[in-house]
Amino acid sequence: MDIVKPSILPGFMELLPEDQILFNKIKGIIEKNFKLYAFAPLDTPVIEKTEVLLAKGGGETAKQIYNIESSTKDMSLRFDLTVPLARFVAEHYHELSFPFKRYHIAKVYRGERNQKGRYREFYQCDIDVIGDEKLDIRNDAEIPAIIYRIFKELKLDDVSFHINNRNILNGFLASLGVDSLVAVLRAVDKLSKIGQDKVLEILTDESIEKDKAEKILEFISINGSNRQILDSLKSLEIREENFVNGLSELETVYEYMLKFGVSEEAIKIDLSITRGLDYYTSTVYETFIKGYESIGSVCSGGRYDDLASNYTKKKLPGIGISIGLSRLFYQLKNADLIKIKAGSVADAIIYTMGDFDEQALSLAEILRKEGLKIQLMFEDMKFKKKMTYANNLKIPYVIIIGEDEVKENKYTVKNMESGEQALLEIDELLELLISGK
Amino acid sequence: MDIVKPSILPGFMELLPEDQILFNKIKGIIEKNFKLYAFAPLDTPVIEKTEVLLAKGGGETAKQIYNIESSTKDMSLRFDLTVPLARFVAEHYHELSFPFKRYHIAKVYRGERNQKGRYREFYQCDIDVIGDEKLDIRNDAEIPAIIYRIFKELKLDDVSFHINNRNILNGFLASLGVDSLVAVLRAVDKLSKIGQDKVLEILTDESIEKDKAEKILEFISINGSNRQILDSLKSLEIREENFVNGLSELETVYEYMLKFGVSEEAIKIDLSITRGLDYYTSTVYETFIKGYESIGSVCSGGRYDDLASNYTKKKLPGIGISIGLSRLFYQLKNADLIKIKAGSVADAIIYTMGDFDEQALSLAEILRKEGLKIQLMFEDMKFKKKMTYANNLKIPYVIIIGEDEVKENKYTVKNMESGEQALLEIDELLELLISGK
Repeated sequence: MDIVKPSILPGFMELLPEDQILFNKIKGIIEKNFKLYAFAPLDTPVIEKTEVLLAKGGGETAKQIYNIESSTKDMSLRFDLTVPLARFVAEHYHELSFPFKRYHIAKVYRGERNQKGRYREFYQCDIDVIGDEKLDIRNDAEIPAIIYRIFKELKLDDVSFHINNRNILNGFLASLGVDSLVAVLRAVDKLSKIGQDKVLEILTDESIEKDKAEKILEFISINGSNRQILDSLKSLEIREENFVNGLSELETVYEYMLKFGVSEEAIKIDLSITRGLDYYTSTVYETFIKGYESIGSVCSGGRYDDLASNYTKKKLPGIGISIGLSRLFYQLKNADLIKIKAGSVADAIIYTMGDFDEQALSLAEILRKEGLKIQLMFEDMKFKKKMTYANNLKIPYVIIIGEDEVKENKYTVKNMESGEQALLEIDELLELLISGK
Repeated sequence: MDIVKPSILPGFMELLPEDQILFNKIKGIIEKNFKLYAFAPLDTPVIEKTEVLLAKGGGETAKQIYNIESSTKDMSLRFDLTVPLARFVAEHYHELSFPFKRYHIAKVYRGERNQKGRYREFYQCDIDVIGDEKLDIRNDAEIPAIIYRIFKELKLDDVSFHINNRNILNGFLASLGVDSLVAVLRAVDKLSKIGQDKVLEILTDESIEKDKAEKILEFISINGSNRQILDSLKSLEIREENFVNGLSELETVYEYMLKFGVSEEAIKIDLSITRGLDYYTSTVYETFIKGYESIGSVCSGGRYDDLASNYTKKKLPGIGISIGLSRLFYQLKNADLIKIKAGSVADAIIYTMGDFDEQALSLAEILRKEGLKIQLMFEDMKFKKKMTYANNLKIPYVIIIGEDEVKENKYTVKNMESGEQALLEIDELLELLISGK
């Protein structure tokens, strides 16, 4: 038979078991926290109608989308989880209760140019709260607080939530009489990458007068403590409605993030983040790991006035955030930032010396009832090879059942890390394994 | 803006939150048990090279496969989880330890004709144990025992594992001098659907002499208790090697299934199941829900001598089983067979009467620390509407914090099912919510 070389396509992530266990542990922590905040699970099809996915219009997205070959249907793979959410909420509006809180952890697909740490198939972990007609601003503070809690549990304590409200800049520009909003947002978005001078150049190229361009730069460079920034903005005494509302919302989000338990040090009001090319309309977030800002934002999101305008006339404002888990995992591994333990595929493995299957089985049953992951070994292997096997799988304990053990109704347990060995009664064994989990 | 009708493609399953919670609960029970038996998670790309997916050859599979449009690569969506496993094990042979036990719960894709309860995207829940060169027969008994445990936890007590070993029939046919093996397997597979006469007709059409065809039918109709069937087979005194080995293996699998805790009533040695068109080589399983046999097998699998022969010259025997979860879920719902409770998106929702955000937040924190799913409500709604919201989401408890509660440092809790209301201290509240989970 012809042998086909076993390999996957470039740009796709596939992990070996040890890393997969770690990846799943992180994914599990994210999901657990989403659930603790009462988000409902959603699981939409990976394949959707192309016209639905591209309802908002083509552009970059259309170029990156994976289409399915079909003579009868136009179908493609989703490129994010927000468009399917919008479609779902519009489709099932009458079956849902609002505010509708949903989480979705799943793979999305983008035929991007292949580069390190960028994947064509990657996990997104999204939460969104969708309101019917309106949605309270406090939701904008709860969302990053949930992410904060997740990062803490992942032992990534040193994160910084950069928050802003697009209406502040919009209002400021309106007060200056500048209306080339998109151009400004685009330029401002690049500030951290290209520096003030270049941004100034772009702005004046966009036929914004030099003094106004300088004012814009000055504005987005307002800095200091969060409180100082808010005060500086207030002291500008701009009456423009967008500005006033944006500032008031930003202040509320900031104050409520503190109330929700996010530490002052983890919040950074940052007038330069605008997520210019996204569909956000007011609150925006980006999240950075301190000292690793070059990785980029590890979790971004914001508020959109009208989630599903491509699919329904209902006005459905929403707030959401997304962790790009595959990329984050790659970067955390690379930067050696993963401090949680992966755990092993098994808490213990049982080896028999002699015909003691029944004893092994009944012990395994007892241990599994306590939630312990237990492997039995049926293969005929030399003892040394069995120990190597346990070592390779990083199984912390080997339990040996032989003639002596059965006679005494005890179990020999070897700690594979320390090499220590002990003869234990069932209760002692249980205690050891449960404490070691 | 043009409105695009929000809808999904036919043949794709998408659930509303309440059903999704139930679906995920079932999926969670399956995954938990796979982990208790020390299977490692695997998560291969949904998109693979077409040549890898179709290495075994085309046929039905090639017709059903979803190809991705691409000018540079031949890529398709996986149609099962076994082919990716084979590719993975061959590719990473030197990085794995054998026996390699992996579980994989994920979506697969088949462009099947659209019919009720058949999906084009569906979850498979697979476990496989892969050996290097050899794999002990006791693995063939542990696999269905795991499924048995899962069905028990799903309160589907009345399942029946039909087990067989293909070598028994192969050996029997060899002893008769019949060599049109595939034709016989195909015919025998249809026995329960078309009856004995039709099968006899097909067999004789395949130029099998009538007396031999009758012997084949007689053979696969051997019945009685499991022990009786084994005894009947032994009493045939066939010396053909395949037959002897197959029978010995089947007996071992049967006896070990009992040892692994599967009840005698849940095991049915069934010489008519062969899974003729699959790649199994000895042990085969199908699983039926008693009284609902018409649903078909809800979980099938078996042993293959050589998992990855399309990708490597290494001999890698394996044993595996698969639950087609999307289809199973659809059928269980339809037959009203789901006896476990879905649970709600939240264990409780907190409503404030007045400006008591801080009290609500700190209560939510306390409750979430205990693993309780807690929703806060920020929206400005009439009290009646709030109660309707909790009712719609089937949240079992509403906690109310108003002036009196704050003064007394207590919480009003309403049981949404009974309508009972009580004023509780924090400890009492915790106890109530935890016990109600």
